[in-house]
Amino acid sequence: MPEFRVFLNDLPGNDFNTIFGSLLPRFKEKLSEQMKSKYGASATLPCFFNGVPGSFYGRLFARESLHLIHSSYSLMWLSQVPRGLEGNKGNIYMARSSPPKVLRAYYEQFQRDFSTFLECRGQELVVGGRMVLTLLGRRSDDPSSKECCYIWELLAIALNEMVSEGLIEEEKLDSFNIPQYTPSPKEVRLEVQKQGSFSIDCLEVSEVNWNVFDADFDRNVVSKDGGYNLARCMRAVAEPLLINHYGEEMMDEVFKRYRAQLATCMSKEKPAFVNVIISLKRIT
Amino acid sequence: MPEFRVFLNDLPGNDFNTIFGSLLPRFKEKLSEQMKSKYGASATLPCFFNGVPGSFYGRLFARESLHLIHSSYSLMWLSQVPRGLEGNKGNIYMARSSPPKVLRAYYEQFQRDFSTFLECRGQELVVGGRMVLTLLGRRSDDPSSKECCYIWELLAIALNEMVSEGLIEEEKLDSFNIPQYTPSPKEVRLEVQKQGSFSIDCLEVSEVNWNVFDADFDRNVVSKDGGYNLARCMRAVAEPLLINHYGEEMMDEVFKRYRAQLATCMSKEKPAFVNVIISLKRIT
Repeated sequence: MPEFRVFLNDLPGNDFNTIFGSLLPRFKEKLSEQMKSKYGASATLPCFFNGVPGSFYGRLFARESLHLIHSSYSLMWLSQVPRGLEGNKGNIYMARSSPPKVLRAYYEQFQRDFSTFLECRGQELVVGGRMVLTLLGRRSDDPSSKECCYIWELLAIALNEMVSEGLIEEEKLDSFNIPQYTPSPKEVRLEVQKQGSFSIDCLEVSEVNWNVFDADFDRNVVSKDGGYNLARCMRAVAEPLLINHYGEEMMDEVFKRYRAQLATCMSKEKPAFVNVIISLKRIT
Repeated sequence: MPEFRVFLNDLPGNDFNTIFGSLLPRFKEKLSEQMKSKYGASATLPCFFNGVPGSFYGRLFARESLHLIHSSYSLMWLSQVPRGLEGNKGNIYMARSSPPKVLRAYYEQFQRDFSTFLECRGQELVVGGRMVLTLLGRRSDDPSSKECCYIWELLAIALNEMVSEGLIEEEKLDSFNIPQYTPSPKEVRLEVQKQGSFSIDCLEVSEVNWNVFDADFDRNVVSKDGGYNLARCMRAVAEPLLINHYGEEMMDEVFKRYRAQLATCMSKEKPAFVNVIISLKRIT
């Protein structure tokens, strides 16, 4: 029976204690039961788990020490807010009203970050090793396209409301930008080709409806939800960034308004997140 | 420049968040500065750190994946309180008044645990790889010897006081035993030889005075300390076990009394902890 080593990476500020103390034991128990039902009662779990704290925009593992790398829903996060976003007035991300230099600054930050990621992982993977990445993206060539920016535009509307009511200073809003970039399949392909460590096995796009209840549940439940679930998800994602900038005491109000925006939007249209999925093989 | 992988193991309940978020960054920064002062400003840190949650009385790492194992001040902890300690009345550990079957139960638990440890690490280490272990031990052949048991006997005195004053039920004291075993060099050697994966490079004993101020500081400070420092150290070590059994609200009183016992003892004699240090090489 081969043995597997699994390395779980996240930023050092992530709550590894909960992963180690609660999620991992449950996962291992389940896995162990599956092993025993397949290979008999004496089967042992041939899996060893490690936590790896650090930014994936730097080296994390020893040279040629990994056979498979998987990153899910993390790589759209940039290493930092791009420089040169002055003039992105009233926006908190790329938007149709963003000046071209803002779109350029975001794209260039993505290029630097993604190529650093490919460079680092290329060193860590054995030749012939595989890497599967899923990241939030878009189909369109336009980086300010609604399919990727709408979710942040609605948050910007909520924040702008609060500015106009004097709850948030205008300057605070103007100096806040989300450190994210949701690339098109074409942009992902281009960076992979430029960087040169990997060949592309497969590059696909998939969609996930904003409304997670969409297909599975009663329509009545969906309409009653009124953006509650998505607002909660987005709060988990965005709150750490927002708290840093606007302070904790603003958060309930921000997300109450954001939820209302999401509900209105979801009652009129059927927006979806676009995922870009790429499977790579290390060639050099 | 070779690259190093460092795996930091502790039980899953340990606070890995503090290690990852605070201790490790400081350590890496210091190491990085040393690298740069030795190899120039462009030198990078060739060290990758991982956290490994789990008991070392089971497998933690893949087969033949490690070159050096170091365990410091952990291996005297048993995997569990030995069974069959009934009749260890008034004691919380091995003591001169413990029945022989109690001493035997402790020793047998140590033998099982230490040989499991050797077995697991033997599988994980490459042939020729080294292992250095430091554990609390004793020189004497007598497992109830004062040199290793005194520190717990003084805690037992404090607890017995509280029983006699009706603050703790007698039954609670009688059902509490410390899951530790401090072996002699001879006992360590015997398990290593029986298990068979390792040859012994070196086996030494060293002493550390209970009073950490002993050599470094003013005698006046030492006498004023009145057991404060050691009581704090022992509280960090023993409190998690004691809380589980006696409840949190007892702790201040227990350690106030324990400190008084330690102070009296240290004012009259010069007790020391005995460390057993062994360096091993994997041979098969």
